[in-house]
Amino acid sequence: MSTQHDWFKILTDCKNNVKDTIKPYLKTLNEPQPDLGEGAGGDAMKPVDLAAEKAIVNTLQKHEISFSLISEESGFKKYGNNPEDCYVTIDPIDGTTNLIRGLPFYASSIAISRKPFIADVYAALVTDLHHDIPYMAQENKGAYRDNERIKTSQVSNLQEAVIGMDLNTYKVVEIAPKVTDLIQQTRHIRHYGANALELCYVANGLTDAFVDIRGKIRTTDAAAGFLIVKEAGGIITDSKKQPINVKLDPKQTLNFVAAGNTKIHDTILGLVKL
Amino acid sequence: MSTQHDWFKILTDCKNNVKDTIKPYLKTLNEPQPDLGEGAGGDAMKPVDLAAEKAIVNTLQKHEISFSLISEESGFKKYGNNPEDCYVTIDPIDGTTNLIRGLPFYASSIAISRKPFIADVYAALVTDLHHDIPYMAQENKGAYRDNERIKTSQVSNLQEAVIGMDLNTYKVVEIAPKVTDLIQQTRHIRHYGANALELCYVANGLTDAFVDIRGKIRTTDAAAGFLIVKEAGGIITDSKKQPINVKLDPKQTLNFVAAGNTKIHDTILGLVKL
Repeated sequence: MSTQHDWFKILTDCKNNVKDTIKPYLKTLNEPQPDLGEGAGGDAMKPVDLAAEKAIVNTLQKHEISFSLISEESGFKKYGNNPEDCYVTIDPIDGTTNLIRGLPFYASSIAISRKPFIADVYAALVTDLHHDIPYMAQENKGAYRDNERIKTSQVSNLQEAVIGMDLNTYKVVEIAPKVTDLIQQTRHIRHYGANALELCYVANGLTDAFVDIRGKIRTTDAAAGFLIVKEAGGIITDSKKQPINVKLDPKQTLNFVAAGNTKIHDTILGLVKL
Repeated sequence: MSTQHDWFKILTDCKNNVKDTIKPYLKTLNEPQPDLGEGAGGDAMKPVDLAAEKAIVNTLQKHEISFSLISEESGFKKYGNNPEDCYVTIDPIDGTTNLIRGLPFYASSIAISRKPFIADVYAALVTDLHHDIPYMAQENKGAYRDNERIKTSQVSNLQEAVIGMDLNTYKVVEIAPKVTDLIQQTRHIRHYGANALELCYVANGLTDAFVDIRGKIRTTDAAAGFLIVKEAGGIITDSKKQPINVKLDPKQTLNFVAAGNTKIHDTILGLVKL
């Protein structure tokens, strides 16, 4: 039974393998990498993304795990004799543009679930690859940064809050007016360019919320981060305050407001126009 | 004559002193620091900001430099027998909120000038304090990251470009419509929350431009970064394509578009509504 695997150990092995694998690609910072066409999620696929995916798959196979892979890069694949044993949803490199540019923000995201739905994720790892900081969570066992238990922030005042927000969308003409009230009342807005990692910042209380209502972020980016935020005490809903339980699929998109506490979550939802 | 000082050496000493000085404050990541009232630039002043300012002043005094200080924290002060010998414009910690929150983006900014005007800056240092990376420039001698010469990017296509943008303003209702066209055509928008450092990212080609048209950024944040961008081959004007030569003063604000090359600079100015 897959939930009995030692997922902390297995996911740590995955992260170490990804970290070693990407090293050669970091040396080419000022030489943009070629595109290898489009990944299953629709983004340009780079050699470093594929190499990181392979590192994750190889590590899971070494641990003799049967699994169904749901990858931002290569879509759906089955491995082992009982591939329905667990679902492994990955964005091998979240923030590939940052990595290639030398901006020190990029992560690897791995979520393990019973079924291919985001609410069924029971183990998760997001690794800040530049600083080699793993953020991990298991269902009902809490969230951890580098083996230290983490909690979300209790900051509820938008004057003090630091809020992450993704505005990268060609539909900004439609989206911007929906968040203008929120930006206007928030003192510190950030966007670091690796959404899986920015969810971990919420989990760790480095930021107080992360807002992505573009309807563009994929489940492969969010699956692991969602469990980590929830296990750290945070709250995630869509912009209408409904729970999110979409299918884990590279093409499935969502919108969400992730927050450290219910008070700031309510405040943000009150300012985001539907 | 102050321009004959070995500014690379003196500024390196300043950076090392600031780095050592802030260490105790980094241990208090989850314990917000008290405010010490408002700095000269109008922001809340923290103990870490004042300690970093003192570290810079002490280092310059140790090198027996006479100078007029223009500081985001404590305003104008004169040191030594010939304080008009040079002007030292500093933001001791740019990105204090990031530092206190544990977000790995904060910098120290020091600009040396003949006169208290931004176009008269002849030596500059911005240090990425978290990663201990100094960005330095001297007039007509180029820009350097950790002793290695740096150049701005030649990326001119907004589909490939990574553009930094500061939207932290209560006037976002007025500002947002002015940048909507730019955001809509740009694939990768970022905001890391330490503008002096984000100017160095432009200088180093990690990003292709940085846009701040809020009319809110201060000369103390921008003075060093402007020289570093220019010496790396970049271009900086206001949003009307006019050269910027404002007085160095903690209360003086400006708006600017800093870009790696003239092509993307023109493209951006064409999309920013005046």
